[in-house]
Amino acid sequence: MKTVAIIGIGLMGGSLGAALRRARPRWRVVGIGRKKKSLERARRAGLIDEAATDLAAGLRGADVVVVATPVSLIVPFVKKIRPHLGAKMLVMDVGSVKADIVRHCARLFSAKSGPAFVGAHPMTGSEKTGFEWARPDLYKNAACILTPVPGAPPAALIRARQFWRAAGSRVHEMSAAAHDQWLAAISHLPHLIAHALILSAAQKPGARQKVAALAAGSFRDATRVAGADPGQWNSILNMNSKNLREAARRFTQTMDKLMKQKFPISMLGRARALRAGLDR
Amino acid sequence: MKTVAIIGIGLMGGSLGAALRRARPRWRVVGIGRKKKSLERARRAGLIDEAATDLAAGLRGADVVVVATPVSLIVPFVKKIRPHLGAKMLVMDVGSVKADIVRHCARLFSAKSGPAFVGAHPMTGSEKTGFEWARPDLYKNAACILTPVPGAPPAALIRARQFWRAAGSRVHEMSAAAHDQWLAAISHLPHLIAHALILSAAQKPGARQKVAALAAGSFRDATRVAGADPGQWNSILNMNSKNLREAARRFTQTMDKLMKQKFPISMLGRARALRAGLDR
Repeated sequence: MKTVAIIGIGLMGGSLGAALRRARPRWRVVGIGRKKKSLERARRAGLIDEAATDLAAGLRGADVVVVATPVSLIVPFVKKIRPHLGAKMLVMDVGSVKADIVRHCARLFSAKSGPAFVGAHPMTGSEKTGFEWARPDLYKNAACILTPVPGAPPAALIRARQFWRAAGSRVHEMSAAAHDQWLAAISHLPHLIAHALILSAAQKPGARQKVAALAAGSFRDATRVAGADPGQWNSILNMNSKNLREAARRFTQTMDKLMKQKFPISMLGRARALRAGLDR
Repeated sequence: MKTVAIIGIGLMGGSLGAALRRARPRWRVVGIGRKKKSLERARRAGLIDEAATDLAAGLRGADVVVVATPVSLIVPFVKKIRPHLGAKMLVMDVGSVKADIVRHCARLFSAKSGPAFVGAHPMTGSEKTGFEWARPDLYKNAACILTPVPGAPPAALIRARQFWRAAGSRVHEMSAAAHDQWLAAISHLPHLIAHALILSAAQKPGARQKVAALAAGSFRDATRVAGADPGQWNSILNMNSKNLREAARRFTQTMDKLMKQKFPISMLGRARALRAGLDR
């Protein structure tokens, strides 16, 4: 039997609780948050077993602690909980950007003894926020990237892998730096594009109505994630802005090349083959 | 009772036949194509009532003629059928770019007498091609943009509206020039972005595997239309390249502005509100 404490019961934290309660009914899931009422509703919705508004009380007896707050609050929360952690606890986060977070958190932990920290990024979510949208299958078949620091205790990494597999995810491992480079290309850039695309299309007079009346699948698909939470994405994009700028530079260069070469069938065909590879 | 001749029984032409046969069972739908075997299969699949490989024979007795070929073949086909058209026939196309097509076709028709031409762009489709993917509801609730030339006979326009409404579409009207500007922003640019995004993400060594393993919803959504037919999109993008370049310029300016201003929550919030407007 294992006790899991989740700090922040929103879409990510609430879904994680629901996934673990379903897959590991003997585990105990403690939800930690500020608002007693919301936590109680989350408990009644079956997302957590117990609710705690006091950090120290909520962490007591935990084997695994997951910080599932908005990305800008992860480092502050890890600092805050550090004095309350037992020697065998494993702490993880769910942040979409890793280098900054891992750098700040890793120095709070020793590689040799005491509690361990492993950065984690479960690549799932939705443009919705709040535990009302939580669902037990949010983590199912999602990639979860672990970003251990060099010299991290292997036992902690093994536990981290087991934990995310219990939630239903496919576990990958890479350095925090590599994570942030890949994520810039495959997640943060598509988000930036979605925002820029809908903002630029709406510039012309009367555009809002026209776009709503005429927008076809390609536009709807490409702008869907512009519905994501502005505050959270302001944090994510800024925390990874160097890699994002580099990915954006490569992207606009490719766009310019396509235009200059008159959209050669060979390049369009290569893009099509690459896209087909994603559905395999 | 009305006879409709459709030239080109692929996804668009086949689905149009199926939609009309379902909505107007008393109409007669003649499918015109090169391959007798394919036409026969389309007939057995219920997409058309009759098959014709001879243009003149297929057009005989038609009230409405729809040229549903790939976009690069529309003008050649309209020129080819012009001598075979009866005085009361209405000719339309389904091309995704309109200014070029309408300019070339309109001069083959008189505004005062004889057959009439009305450019049409039913905004529907799929990244699949071929009549095997045809379905009777492809046109349902899709926007169909009519681009009549100045001075076009009002009766032809009324018939065109009735025709596309019979197929289930919402009819809009604008000039071919306005159509091409809007389409650059809400369809051709998202296609170009999809191609550039997946090509640029796959540049790094080992990228194909990584992208396939890690690509989340935002990347999959934004690149979906890169699966579209390379030959057809080479034509479409080139036929509308001036407007597309202008839309791409506005888009990259907005992307640069977002990066320079550090992704302000106000701009991300405005994008979110605009996106919500698409789902209303």
